[in-house]
Amino acid sequence: MSSLKGKDILHGNQFSKKEIETIIKTASEFEKELKKKDSLTLLRGKILATLFFEPSTRTRLSFEAAMQRLGGGVISMGSVESSSVAKGETLTDTAQTVAQYADVIVIRHPRMGSAKEVADAVSIPVINAGDGAGQHPTQALLDLYTIRKELGTLKNLSITLVGDLKNGRTVHALVEVLSHFGVRFYFVSPDLLRMPEEVAVRMKEKGCEVIETDDLVMAASKSDLVYMTRIQKERFADLSEYEKVKGSYIIDREFLDRLKKKITILHPLPRVDEIHPEVDSYPGAAYFRQMRNGVFVRMALLAMILGKR
Amino acid sequence: MSSLKGKDILHGNQFSKKEIETIIKTASEFEKELKKKDSLTLLRGKILATLFFEPSTRTRLSFEAAMQRLGGGVISMGSVESSSVAKGETLTDTAQTVAQYADVIVIRHPRMGSAKEVADAVSIPVINAGDGAGQHPTQALLDLYTIRKELGTLKNLSITLVGDLKNGRTVHALVEVLSHFGVRFYFVSPDLLRMPEEVAVRMKEKGCEVIETDDLVMAASKSDLVYMTRIQKERFADLSEYEKVKGSYIIDREFLDRLKKKITILHPLPRVDEIHPEVDSYPGAAYFRQMRNGVFVRMALLAMILGKR
Amino acid sequence: MSSLKGKDILHGNQFSKKEIETIIKTASEFEKELKKKDSLTLLRGKILATLFFEPSTRTRLSFEAAMQRLGGGVISMGSVESSSVAKGETLTDTAQTVAQYADVIVIRHPRMGSAKEVADAVSIPVINAGDGAGQHPTQALLDLYTIRKELGTLKNLSITLVGDLKNGRTVHALVEVLSHFGVRFYFVSPDLLRMPEEVAVRMKEKGCEVIETDDLVMAASKSDLVYMTRIQKERFADLSEYEKVKGSYIIDREFLDRLKKKITILHPLPRVDEIHPEVDSYPGAAYFRQMRNGVFVRMALLAMILGKR
Repeated sequence: MSSLKGKDILHGNQFSKKEIETIIKTASEFEKELKKKDSLTLLRGKILATLFFEPSTRTRLSFEAAMQRLGGGVISMGSVESSSVAKGETLTDTAQTVAQYADVIVIRHPRMGSAKEVADAVSIPVINAGDGAGQHPTQALLDLYTIRKELGTLKNLSITLVGDLKNGRTVHALVEVLSHFGVRFYFVSPDLLRMPEEVAVRMKEKGCEVIETDDLVMAASKSDLVYMTRIQKERFADLSEYEKVKGSYIIDREFLDRLKKKITILHPLPRVDEIHPEVDSYPGAAYFRQMRNGVFVRMALLAMILGKR
Repeated sequence: MSSLKGKDILHGNQFSKKEIETIIKTASEFEKELKKKDSLTLLRGKILATLFFEPSTRTRLSFEAAMQRLGGGVISMGSVESSSVAKGETLTDTAQTVAQYADVIVIRHPRMGSAKEVADAVSIPVINAGDGAGQHPTQALLDLYTIRKELGTLKNLSITLVGDLKNGRTVHALVEVLSHFGVRFYFVSPDLLRMPEEVAVRMKEKGCEVIETDDLVMAASKSDLVYMTRIQKERFADLSEYEKVKGSYIIDREFLDRLKKKITILHPLPRVDEIHPEVDSYPGAAYFRQMRNGVFVRMALLAMILGKR
Repeated sequence: MSSLKGKDILHGNQFSKKEIETIIKTASEFEKELKKKDSLTLLRGKILATLFFEPSTRTRLSFEAAMQRLGGGVISMGSVESSSVAKGETLTDTAQTVAQYADVIVIRHPRMGSAKEVADAVSIPVINAGDGAGQHPTQALLDLYTIRKELGTLKNLSITLVGDLKNGRTVHALVEVLSHFGVRFYFVSPDLLRMPEEVAVRMKEKGCEVIETDDLVMAASKSDLVYMTRIQKERFADLSEYEKVKGSYIIDREFLDRLKKKITILHPLPRVDEIHPEVDSYPGAAYFRQMRNGVFVRMALLAMILGKR
């Protein structure tokens, strides 16, 4: 049996297919247990430290809820301005101190590689919750968990990924974990923001099918699921180009009517206007359920790396 | 039996007399239980999310203490600057995400109507902890609880409300919940800041007696209790007018000596100088006890809306 | 038996030798219990309020971890900007309110004497976690605990204190608690930053030996332990003077090689460059263990003042 006990969670690529399946299974068990029992106590007495050097309410609260749902406690660094970092302390010194107080660290930091640096410095497990343009592996796992739960399987799926596929940390990590399961990918992006060639190549090597297009309606109509992401204005030199692109990648009622089939929609959130709020009541709109699944997946990871599962 | 299970707490007017009596009874039971036992576990496994878009240490900490006194956990958004709101997310999207992590939301937001908007968007109960010029219903309930506890009854009371009665959210909510109990009100304010006519009329319709005056000593000497509030400088165009008014509504030792009777003094706090610190040791100075009662009342509300009482 | 139940922890001088020994013994017991059991429940149902008017992630998180390691809960004021203090409330009013919610307060505030002021105003125990140029008594106790643990005894020790001995709150408190145990002190500082004469005199009166020098290698080679502190640039009018001084008080591999003996190194952290990171793997580098010991010592203090030990 492969075990994550004592391991760091740093990179979407670090997991074997077997490990991914174990994480999903464990998350699913916790989801069921939470429905049956008022409270779980698996991590009672354990403490999670959250070190967020960049704001991310969503991710921080998700981890803090996951820890508390298992009976554990949380200490939280608070804003960078009110921390020892403001006194010129190095990142690894801060982390080594916090590691004396807690049993596991979750870190978000703007610099790529920072989570690995911290993991190398401390003796307790570290979870990377985003290191700049680098990785955010728990997001990919919760996306995977959601896809499996919404569609009932991970086999023989056709999945459309939309938006800034060039810079999107989220989609890069997601295709890596999906690649274990033989997916047909539709990569939908403006030409300027296409999926990096090496990613597309690697997906094909791993036995996935890859179709690149800028036609969202076509791709979505042939897919089981659309994974939307935001296109950032600041990527475009020519704003009129941005406006044109933005307009073609919006999911609203009209778009759903044109599809002539039911589809599942995910989004890592926050959204700006790429999914209209009128879509929220559509049965396939799974992005808020996706947020909830993040808690179950993070419960699984916390329990596993702390050796309790 | 009327039940608050699954309900939102949005407005001081939403409660029937029966519901108010149940809340007070439940709060009183929790107060007694806390004296007898080291810890309560009624809400173990439940999570409260606090979303404070405006600073309010007092109210936030009161709710967080109430939740933990019942064995529950807390996740807290932190300052607005460090939240997804800074990334342009809508209030309802933020709330819908947090609702996936928690069992109940407490929100403070500067915009009137915002708490209702959030309550309509999410599937878990929402407690309004202040929405701008709107409502702050738990403050009114803790005031009521304090009045009953200090005076032993809610029947046949004479109560003086002092300060900015025109704009004061706190006093507006308080008179609504008090109106169930047939109170004689003394409304003491400068002319500029009188209680809105429609409130006075409604109180009379509900069987309360209303006396409006600018004479605090007269009103207080005929009352069982004085409820002080702050008069805000910025309401006055003419600062000399402000100084005059401010000076006439100050409770200090001299004022208490002039009354020739014992009186109970409440204040929602923070105070500036409308109650002199020398009054703190006066037996009737109940404003810090009032703060403590807030914990018991919020424990009652949390337990009731989560279906545990 | 001397007891700390209900007492405030305000000043390094407040403890008798007997009390210090009890605190150390209790901390040691908690350290052992945490190794044997998954969770302790001694303070279940109790709430600690942290009021940090100055940033100190290290100290705040240490207290919050200590409280949670004993099963207690935490409420935390957050940054000053988002608190009632921003509305002009006095420190004692803020503290009196928080005292209605919690069972014990930990306060850090830039003004000397503020912790005492708060302790006088509220009816629950208060722990001073630093009041400007004043005291930080729990730091001294955790330093003492670490010295005893690293060296196995507090008797007949030679201890070198290095850095800004004139202004250093930490070293002032440490020598006070050490003075009970008959230490030989080496005070190593630039001339400008020497230990105040009255402290040196008092140490001698208490039966300690005091050697003042600016030669760190000599002092360290005759000591069991070196306690490093930071020298602050802003203390020097002449920057070239600062650079010279700074360079002579750095612990690195070369320094350790010159000593020709093993030594234990402590530092209250954060460090800037007075201890080179290459020293971190040296067996005697105890400054991160020192951080961990802070949790045990604070557990002991919390349990004792709350009457549970």
